[in-house]
Amino acid sequence: MTQPVDLLLTNAVVLTMDEKLTQYEPGAVAIKGNSLVAVGTESDLLDQYLASEIIDCQGKVLMPGLVNAHTHAAMTLLRGIADDLRLDVWLLGYMMPVEREFVSPEFVRLGTLLACAEMIRSGVTCFADMYYFESHVASATAQVGLRAVCAQTVYKFPAPDALDYEEALEKAREFIKEWKDHPLIVPAIGPHAFYTCTQEILQNSSKLALEFDVPLLIHISETSQEVETCRNDNGMPVVPYLKKQGIFEAKTLAAHCVHVDEGEINTLRHHNVGVAHNPSSNLKLASGFAPTTNMLEAKLNVGIGTDGAASNNDLDMFEEIRLAAFIAKAHTNDPTALHAHTALTMGTRLGAQALHLGTKIGSLETGKCADLILIDLKTSHTAPRFRRDRDNIYAQIVYSAKSTDVSDVMVDGRWLMRDRILLTLNEIEIIEQTKEYARQIDTFLAQREQSILSKLIAIGGAEEAESYEVQVKVRVQNAQSVIDAIKQPSIEILRFRHYHEYDTYFAFTDPKQGQLRYREDDFIGEDGQVETVRYRLTLLGIAREERLPSDVLLSRSRYLAPATHSLRFYREYFKPASETVIHKDRLRWRILFHGTECYINLDEVNQPNLGSFVEIKSRTWSRRDAEHKSELAVDLLKTLGIVTDEIIGKEYLELI
Amino acid sequence: MTQPVDLLLTNAVVLTMDEKLTQYEPGAVAIKGNSLVAVGTESDLLDQYLASEIIDCQGKVLMPGLVNAHTHAAMTLLRGIADDLRLDVWLLGYMMPVEREFVSPEFVRLGTLLACAEMIRSGVTCFADMYYFESHVASATAQVGLRAVCAQTVYKFPAPDALDYEEALEKAREFIKEWKDHPLIVPAIGPHAFYTCTQEILQNSSKLALEFDVPLLIHISETSQEVETCRNDNGMPVVPYLKKQGIFEAKTLAAHCVHVDEGEINTLRHHNVGVAHNPSSNLKLASGFAPTTNMLEAKLNVGIGTDGAASNNDLDMFEEIRLAAFIAKAHTNDPTALHAHTALTMGTRLGAQALHLGTKIGSLETGKCADLILIDLKTSHTAPRFRRDRDNIYAQIVYSAKSTDVSDVMVDGRWLMRDRILLTLNEIEIIEQTKEYARQIDTFLAQREQSILSKLIAIGGAEEAESYEVQVKVRVQNAQSVIDAIKQPSIEILRFRHYHEYDTYFAFTDPKQGQLRYREDDFIGEDGQVETVRYRLTLLGIAREERLPSDVLLSRSRYLAPATHSLRFYREYFKPASETVIHKDRLRWRILFHGTECYINLDEVNQPNLGSFVEIKSRTWSRRDAEHKSELAVDLLKTLGIVTDEIIGKEYLELI
Repeated sequence: MTQPVDLLLTNAVVLTMDEKLTQYEPGAVAIKGNSLVAVGTESDLLDQYLASEIIDCQGKVLMPGLVNAHTHAAMTLLRGIADDLRLDVWLLGYMMPVEREFVSPEFVRLGTLLACAEMIRSGVTCFADMYYFESHVASATAQVGLRAVCAQTVYKFPAPDALDYEEALEKAREFIKEWKDHPLIVPAIGPHAFYTCTQEILQNSSKLALEFDVPLLIHISETSQEVETCRNDNGMPVVPYLKKQGIFEAKTLAAHCVHVDEGEINTLRHHNVGVAHNPSSNLKLASGFAPTTNMLEAKLNVGIGTDGAASNNDLDMFEEIRLAAFIAKAHTNDPTALHAHTALTMGTRLGAQALHLGTKIGSLETGKCADLILIDLKTSHTAPRFRRDRDNIYAQIVYSAKSTDVSDVMVDGRWLMRDRILLTLNEIEIIEQTKEYARQIDTFLAQREQSILSKLIAIGGAEEAESYEVQVKVRVQNAQSVIDAIKQPSIEILRFRHYHEYDTYFAFTDPKQGQLRYREDDFIGEDGQVETVRYRLTLLGIAREERLPSDVLLSRSRYLAPATHSLRFYREYFKPASETVIHKDRLRWRILFHGTECYINLDEVNQPNLGSFVEIKSRTWSRRDAEHKSELAVDLLKTLGIVTDEIIGKEYLELI
Repeated sequence: MTQPVDLLLTNAVVLTMDEKLTQYEPGAVAIKGNSLVAVGTESDLLDQYLASEIIDCQGKVLMPGLVNAHTHAAMTLLRGIADDLRLDVWLLGYMMPVEREFVSPEFVRLGTLLACAEMIRSGVTCFADMYYFESHVASATAQVGLRAVCAQTVYKFPAPDALDYEEALEKAREFIKEWKDHPLIVPAIGPHAFYTCTQEILQNSSKLALEFDVPLLIHISETSQEVETCRNDNGMPVVPYLKKQGIFEAKTLAAHCVHVDEGEINTLRHHNVGVAHNPSSNLKLASGFAPTTNMLEAKLNVGIGTDGAASNNDLDMFEEIRLAAFIAKAHTNDPTALHAHTALTMGTRLGAQALHLGTKIGSLETGKCADLILIDLKTSHTAPRFRRDRDNIYAQIVYSAKSTDVSDVMVDGRWLMRDRILLTLNEIEIIEQTKEYARQIDTFLAQREQSILSKLIAIGGAEEAESYEVQVKVRVQNAQSVIDAIKQPSIEILRFRHYHEYDTYFAFTDPKQGQLRYREDDFIGEDGQVETVRYRLTLLGIAREERLPSDVLLSRSRYLAPATHSLRFYREYFKPASETVIHKDRLRWRILFHGTECYINLDEVNQPNLGSFVEIKSRTWSRRDAEHKSELAVDLLKTLGIVTDEIIGKEYLELI
């Protein structure tokens, strides 16, 4: 009795990737609608099934499609805009400013189509995505015919598609409702990471995932810095902290898990959390080596992901699968670690299980979806083929084959690629359309790079503020006499502070850009100890805007902001042509003198050793006011008993 | 005034990879004969040159061909025969036995052709090779039209092409003479590594290289074990040891250099030694992370190699170049380490310099050879292209492009590939021919795998020896009474020894294979201390070959050899189904009893705790002799006052 089916694929080396790693050669697969009706030897299936169409696979490998367990598909449009940078410079200096400017539904749609083209070409049939405007990711993917878990990103900052997290959560809810029962798309919620989400966001995300029984996607312990932050802020590593927020109550997929300990691995296992390992991304961003062999030993479902193309810079799962094996060997110092068949299982069945789709996809088994690929191993870079051991063919695929050896791709019973021709999208048109985005982004960044001020504004969190200041500076030999003189009745002291100032000045090739000062102010208490520390970033105009009578300076501070990043960050981001360091001990009085507010600074410049100075400074707003205040400043100097014919019309920077 | 040239390549993104990383877009290259006449902008070259042929490169990248700085080309025929193994198991258990059996001029020729096909397809125009029958590597390469430095391997063991090192050196001399002035082939000498060569080989190799002014290729510090061996044997690391042998007097190219310290790096630099870094191979074999950033900082010429396809398992330089950047970042924990343009320079100009061919190839500069490739970057996996920074395009090539994006390859002015069609070899025929080798090697290994004895013989250094032994065993309660009884006059003691025996028995799925015993004999001196240690491997037949009267055993030891490798090695190589461990304290007397030589063993079996036993053993050669000796053994037991009705007809292994 033969049973009718739609399609029979024959004459293949069938690698089922099931629990037993069953192989059939010559093998065959019977397909009806979108499902696998049977998988077995060619002769058995030819006997048992009557097919509307029979396709001879010509001895190619027939296996389940690859599962890309972590990506940001639309970021293909940002591929290669900035490389070889540290994560913070790359993210805050380039990705986020560009995303704020360019990410839109159209951007997301085009980027997703480009990603789908690349992924189909490299044998991916399902991917897990996290991005903005996720409904546009979903619709582009569904249109192309790929399968995906699509997570709408939520975090505490304003995003390209949501002004605040409440709006983001609301959008996620709408998105999940809309796509809940789609045959190809599994909607999900994506709280970005512990450090970009509040407890409330994490808890609400988990509730939403549970309410609709959809997956929750999150980044976990990608860098050691992230773990350290969590320990400092919450007194525990990332996994227990997220557990406390209820994150693992949901069907969770955790990307990275580079820095997790044995206890955390057990927690992940206990809650059936899927893990997405991202070899290239972790190498390229120097995030560290994920403990994949330990996670696999603990029976965690560890899939493999490409991460976004902006960090990686491609979506080639063949490369990732090979690297998963390579890295595990190198990291454990054991070449027998993570065999080829394990790596390929991670790229298929374990990946599907990590995405909580293990019952539908990931292996060629009766009843599962017809998501499959053909690989041509008759190439000069894979020949010859050895058959002594059944592991030979896994090694051939993992260690020798390339993504370009994938000839045919089927998802849900539908061919997306035949003989390397893409059937469901117009690749040339898509590539053509990306050029305009690249041009616009190039222009945006080029303009920004021309101006230090623009670069400063681009990294956000800063206020632009113009301020004019009148400044008089003289050298003093006897600091104590100045301190004593300030106590006289004509000077009303409003406030006194003592601090150490550590300044680093960045100078640029074009002097018109001014100089950027990174200042650490250590406030010294009465006991001589540091009380508080403040970091500020100031973009200084050209030092001498104008000279007033008696060498009084009129300077202009164009920009002032708290410096939330490290000096190292700013150095790598602004790439100064040169740097100058000045350290000084400063006594600062805010006073009233003849009814006018001004500051007296008594500075001892230690590095370089320039000696002691008195500065009189006063904010101003007009040329006339500036002239008045400059006369007052000279008066004040005289009142302090300081000879005024030695006024120095220069900044400390110019005295070096 | 226009100058006539043979060929003008126009409308290209020309990446010269010269010292300044000069780029031209749209750029062009003028070629006359085998040389580059000019490299510049398209408009300049169109003005200055009148070409017999103009080819429009359609906006592709035009750059120097890649230099594969270390490979064993012919080993493509062994690609994937054994993976996920430790280096020693892989090398001694698989590579060397198969090479001894199969490597011939025909094998080398076919393997080289296969390698050339793969390398041309992936944009390699020059490679450095080390193997056997190197003249056949050279002739196959020259015929195909690739450029290569070909080193005839020399070491202290018999090789497939030389019975001893004198013959190998003589062959190398002949080879060098024959190929000395070939336009494409640079002959060289390849002393394999310090641990496979005697001082004499190393010194003579260097002399030969100097005599003919040819390069010397050698493996240096691939594993930490190699360095440890060198320190133990020679009291210094590998680099100073080789320096002492005069190796660096030659134009040396050192493969790997994974475990070299700062001092060694300086020595290499001082002697202008080229380095071939092999990222995939080092990862896959867990050799370690080479200090590439330090070597580059020291201005060493660090090229990139694929290593042989049997270990790697492909010859894809795009993969290696990308990994060189990735690994440096991950290893130094700094994502800004080893930028894309540096990685690509390593794959081209630095590689050429490492091969001591820097004046001829490695960059597109006037006067250099016309060795170049075209890369098509208009693909979905490389789009879009950013142009803001000139580094963008290097990142695009290194991090996104694939070897299959190489469309055209020219070496020495001759096209080897146009539009992905190989012009100088028949790829399909070559792949077809590899099948027969794969079949034969599969058969050879499969037969060998079926027999533990064959596997034992395959790893060499062992003698096959059949020996029959008569054995009588009884349990004793009072060991001291036996020791006293041996002193009686009817027993002549020839020798006495005391030792601890640590036995590990490997059992196999097929019991007919017998058991393999790994034995450590610790000889105990009169002071109770271990004097010497001996390791032996014995393949035991089925324990009870035959039972003689009175439960005397006749056992047959089929094979005996010193165990030169570790227990771990044998475990991974033989893959036993189960293991049993037995430790005992043994007092052993060689005696004469009634004119017959035999042994008395007084054993205390500690692990597992079985108690004390006396064994009488005697070698035998015939059934009749065996019967005689078994009677004698029972007599001897009685003489020792031991009750003989409790003779145990079992090995210790069977008592557990």
